[in-house]
Amino acid sequence: MCDDYKKITGTLYGLGVGPGDPGLVTVRAKEILDTVDTIFVPKAKDDGRSCARSIAEAAVSKPKNFIELIFPMTKDRKKLESYWLSAARRIARELKRERQAAFVTIGDPFIYSTYIYLLETLRKNFPNIELKTIPGISAFNAAAASGGLPLVKGDERMAILPVTKDLKGLRKALKEFDTVVLMKVGSKLGIIIRLLKEMKLIKNSVLVSHAGQAGEKIIRDISSLKDKKSGYLSVIIVKRKMDNKI
Amino acid sequence: MCDDYKKITGTLYGLGVGPGDPGLVTVRAKEILDTVDTIFVPKAKDDGRSCARSIAEAAVSKPKNFIELIFPMTKDRKKLESYWLSAARRIARELKRERQAAFVTIGDPFIYSTYIYLLETLRKNFPNIELKTIPGISAFNAAAASGGLPLVKGDERMAILPVTKDLKGLRKALKEFDTVVLMKVGSKLGIIIRLLKEMKLIKNSVLVSHAGQAGEKIIRDISSLKDKKSGYLSVIIVKRKMDNKI
Repeated sequence: MCDDYKKITGTLYGLGVGPGDPGLVTVRAKEILDTVDTIFVPKAKDDGRSCARSIAEAAVSKPKNFIELIFPMTKDRKKLESYWLSAARRIARELKRERQAAFVTIGDPFIYSTYIYLLETLRKNFPNIELKTIPGISAFNAAAASGGLPLVKGDERMAILPVTKDLKGLRKALKEFDTVVLMKVGSKLGIIIRLLKEMKLIKNSVLVSHAGQAGEKIIRDISSLKDKKSGYLSVIIVKRKMDNKI
Repeated sequence: MCDDYKKITGTLYGLGVGPGDPGLVTVRAKEILDTVDTIFVPKAKDDGRSCARSIAEAAVSKPKNFIELIFPMTKDRKKLESYWLSAARRIARELKRERQAAFVTIGDPFIYSTYIYLLETLRKNFPNIELKTIPGISAFNAAAASGGLPLVKGDERMAILPVTKDLKGLRKALKEFDTVVLMKVGSKLGIIIRLLKEMKLIKNSVLVSHAGQAGEKIIRDISSLKDKKSGYLSVIIVKRKMDNKI
């Protein structure tokens, strides 16, 4: 990369805008969105829509210059890296013209977010760009609040993990932690339901889909779920012990 | 308790106002604080000050009726329960006069908050009061953002635990999780430093004291900490693997 790019300065604000409800954007994030001219938003496909963009559009006081960056859904690391680098270059090009810009991401920017990869790519390739990260409300905080289900109190311990093929690790966490938050449930909902039944934890589990979004659903009887799509954009909170009636 | 109390209705909003910086209050929390007349705030001592009150005062647009409720720092369960019940009764008394009120708590209301005990007490004793919980930014989200330290990405797993006497459990979590967030460090900082050194994780650890507050400090060389007070209001984030230079 040409040396000129290495010298690019300016500030990129990495903003978490919460799980979907524009009311769950922080005052600081809203202020920054109102201040900058350009707002970068991630999306998975060229012809797809960006949830982060919808939230940011609802939060800002006047129209902004939105620039969509593609972060494809693939496991191909090489391909991903090329997209991260394109995104980082696009941001650097903008910061050459402007002093500052924002990149918005749903939830908290440091919990399972594409922003983390972008941040790492920017640090490596554009070391003079200042990166300021503003925390956001994560889907599991919103899920717990909506479900009226406290996460941890006193000496309790919590594990937060994505549902993967590693059922052994998941089983272990369910045995050892007071609260387990299962993220990225998706198509693996059926497997999870079987495991929770087997471990006699199904009655201690609450599924919240689209937590903190307009279509939010709270499901306290998970075993009733037949629809395979119910796992989409869902968080499951499992408590070792149910303290009280919800 | 007299039956009359059981019939009290109304809505209590349990609001997380984030770790300290009024900018980290959500738009929704600010709206609710601006709408209600009475705001309940927790504090530990009669003559102490309430952090939650300071944040709420800075966030609201006009003066409000603040009512301080005592949640003492004690392990005496009986004593605690009597304070929780007093607080619940005080709120119920207010809701008999007004349609709604707010209770504010620092961080997220469902992560190590006194609000959880209040909620349980209200559910048990005043079943007709509607409880609406609004999520907030937790200290560890703010600590990660300020420290520029991503929490979890991809298939990574995170454990969140308070520092207790159970070093075995802590050691296990440090071995098995990609990211461990240590809350309530306090006076146990020395013990933690020794453990992190022994496990060769000290260089992978960042301590953030007063995360998201005016006096915030980010300490990347934890082993240098001499002052015993450094653990006060601190969060330590330990990464199994440091991905990149911060």
